[in-house]
Amino acid sequence: METLSIPTTRREQFVDVTAQVRQALARSGVRDGLLLVHSPHTTAGVTINENSDPDVPRDMLAWLRAAIPQAGPTGDPFRHDEGNADAHLKASLMGAGQTLPVRDGQLVLGTWQAVFLAEFDGPRTRTLHVQAVGR
Amino acid sequence: METLSIPTTRREQFVDVTAQVRQALARSGVRDGLLLVHSPHTTAGVTINENSDPDVPRDMLAWLRAAIPQAGPTGDPFRHDEGNADAHLKASLMGAGQTLPVRDGQLVLGTWQAVFLAEFDGPRTRTLHVQAVGR
Amino acid sequence: METLSIPTTRREQFVDVTAQVRQALARSGVRDGLLLVHSPHTTAGVTINENSDPDVPRDMLAWLRAAIPQAGPTGDPFRHDEGNADAHLKASLMGAGQTLPVRDGQLVLGTWQAVFLAEFDGPRTRTLHVQAVGR
Repeated sequence: METLSIPTTRREQFVDVTAQVRQALARSGVRDGLLLVHSPHTTAGVTINENSDPDVPRDMLAWLRAAIPQAGPTGDPFRHDEGNADAHLKASLMGAGQTLPVRDGQLVLGTWQAVFLAEFDGPRTRTLHVQAVGR
Repeated sequence: METLSIPTTRREQFVDVTAQVRQALARSGVRDGLLLVHSPHTTAGVTINENSDPDVPRDMLAWLRAAIPQAGPTGDPFRHDEGNADAHLKASLMGAGQTLPVRDGQLVLGTWQAVFLAEFDGPRTRTLHVQAVGR
Repeated sequence: METLSIPTTRREQFVDVTAQVRQALARSGVRDGLLLVHSPHTTAGVTINENSDPDVPRDMLAWLRAAIPQAGPTGDPFRHDEGNADAHLKASLMGAGQTLPVRDGQLVLGTWQAVFLAEFDGPRTRTLHVQAVGR
């Protein structure tokens, strides 16, 4: 298992970590199997989506921000006293981790797919774990 | 790893791929381990839910369509110029892939569970990767 | 693979199953690899988030309840005749399962992370499958 360190610069941000994940896979020696990218945080998750047009992650974050306000739903406001209950929910909606196939020593991603750290309570320095299994 | 080809016929559609996934598992020879179904697309994901009553996938799609309009949130419209930013977000909310247990050579699914390709920007011919690890 | 039995006491509830998952891992003998926690249900999922402040799961459930009413979206109500279409959708949004890294025989979780059964149509007795792969 390898641990990556990923700095974030805004409260909500998708950071493309595909290159670091590919490097961790190469060091693992796994050629055929599965690779997990896991966020050990509760206000940042992992998602897989497009990073060709930067408007795609921007739009995804815009909807999440509009739909899940920091104050919580009207009539039943969030109570968590750190003021980041929205970030916890957003992290669970994206998922704490994503699993990908490995074939011929390569991460199997579609042409437009990137692996993102999904930050919802930055800026911070975040950690991601990369674990590969197989042969 | 096996690659399945799945045609879709509507913009938004859940296509039950359970039978094809079971066949790919049988060909893999894995009897005890994990199986990943991965979508290499950014506007189609994978989810696991009920396919006994077709109203279940219908209702799930109805909520997603109402909650995530193609135009984006009021006051902060989507900018992605392909007009499918909603589909990118819906794919990430369902997940790019789902991992399932394998025991005695069988996919472990609950009585009512089916594996769906979750199409959000069809109709198209989509691809799914199936990768099993274990022994 | 091990199967856990988890009683729930409310319609919507996050039940912390981290201790039972750790025990199942210990019995598996896997020291380095991946562990999957899978819900075989279609109205209960699995998510990873904070269980230090009970307001975090409370707030997450409050938003889901407000955003996804049992009746469905205004103008296009849910049709599934069991009246739990909302629970099916919530389960898919959280995910049917979560995969975690295993290192040195230990489940790799962040300081604040817990594994939750996410119940959306209880109270019931639910089942979770725990499957570890690796060496």
